Amino acid sequence: MSVAPEQSPAAPAAEDAAENTYAPTDRTVPTRSKERARYDHEMVHAILDEAYVCHLGFVRDGAPVVLPTLYGRVGDRLYVHGSTGSRPLRMAGQQAPGLPVCLTVTHVDGLVLARSAFHHSINYRSVVVHGTAHQVTDPEEKRLALDALVDHVVPGRSADSRPANAKELAATAVLRLDLAEVSAKLRTGGPNDEPEDLELPYWTGVVPVQRTHGALVPSDDLADGIEVPKYLRDL
Amino acid sequence: MSVAPEQSPAAPAAEDAAENTYAPTDRTVPTRSKERARYDHEMVHAILDEAYVCHLGFVRDGAPVVLPTLYGRVGDRLYVHGSTGSRPLRMAGQQAPGLPVCLTVTHVDGLVLARSAFHHSINYRSVVVHGTAHQVTDPEEKRLALDALVDHVVPGRSADSRPANAKELAATAVLRLDLAEVSAKLRTGGPNDEPEDLELPYWTGVVPVQRTHGALVPSDDLADGIEVPKYLRDL
Repeated sequence: MSVAPEQSPAAPAAEDAAENTYAPTDRTVPTRSKERARYDHEMVHAILDEAYVCHLGFVRDGAPVVLPTLYGRVGDRLYVHGSTGSRPLRMAGQQAPGLPVCLTVTHVDGLVLARSAFHHSINYRSVVVHGTAHQVTDPEEKRLALDALVDHVVPGRSADSRPANAKELAATAVLRLDLAEVSAKLRTGGPNDEPEDLELPYWTGVVPVQRTHGALVPSDDLADGIEVPKYLRDL
Repeated sequence: MSVAPEQSPAAPAAEDAAENTYAPTDRTVPTRSKERARYDHEMVHAILDEAYVCHLGFVRDGAPVVLPTLYGRVGDRLYVHGSTGSRPLRMAGQQAPGLPVCLTVTHVDGLVLARSAFHHSINYRSVVVHGTAHQVTDPEEKRLALDALVDHVVPGRSADSRPANAKELAATAVLRLDLAEVSAKLRTGGPNDEPEDLELPYWTGVVPVQRTHGALVPSDDLADGIEVPKYLRDL
């Protein structure tokens, strides 16, 4: 995310490009910092599973729209949901071939402070998915998708809450986006200063950035005797 | 971000809609959960200033693209930067009327665990900016924008690093996006269960989510005697 080539982990060996990687396309090979790109399922899935929201892009009246939204993953399928009246879900339902989307997830892992302004950067891990979103019409797939959405927020939670009833299911639209044209990109490590800058008198290094969970805030109307479940204590 | 109407802070009074608010448009009035939308400068700026990356959406060959990128703010102007060879920056430079974009920033503040799967949600604050990005050609504005980008990551840092030289400036393209068609959206508070679900035996409440900074990691080649500056100790 800097303007300059930066230090990155080594690229995977060519022989790794087997069935456990997504095939690169014109859209998933970066124009620069190519050594930061990753296509292996394990890395892509791990980045997707760790984030709470994605940013979903679509085109409306010729202009881009980017909205934050929850999502879930089941194998190589991503699901987003929303009211049947919301714009992207309506658009995907109306368009027979589906809705072209770009779904992006980003973790910020550190602030990279170089001696030069130019080499400032951040450490991050991101996934960009290109594809076409389709409305899920099969009732069984829709139920699985909604469970995945809840379990994405807190693993184990869908089994410990009331499932959607018929009315709620009818009010909810679910879109599916297959993981096919997808890549991860990451930067790790310290600043990458120019040799002639090494003597400059500026502090240089990385400020780690982390996501943490605060103490649970029970609802006011939580009944006595309901313990904090294990999947929450483990968060 | 739930499929259901949820608890939200009260909407601002109509008399507040003075010069300190952005005028709502068709694109910035949500189709649902309208009570979550905000247009006041203070809220919009605060959300923008707190995030490290935005998600920038644009249209390429008719399809949406969403990329994470750093940004900076100077009053009512946002700046993003990149290599002069990167796709959106090249596209904005080539298109005389500029590049239509949507720039979105999101903070996740909490996981909202309701008794019903349907009412699960997250607490969040987001800003969505619609507009046209233009390449910055004025050298003075470009310098100010690059300072803003560095200071956005760590306030005070641009004055404590080497400014870009002529070669670095030439390699860097900067896009400006005016804050005009912009809105914030937020959800706060606890779950909003159905009355008939209140007796269900599930734990319910909020898991707060926070962003924290880890202990500084100095570069290996940091010279002895360079103290951690105050703006980093204050992070």
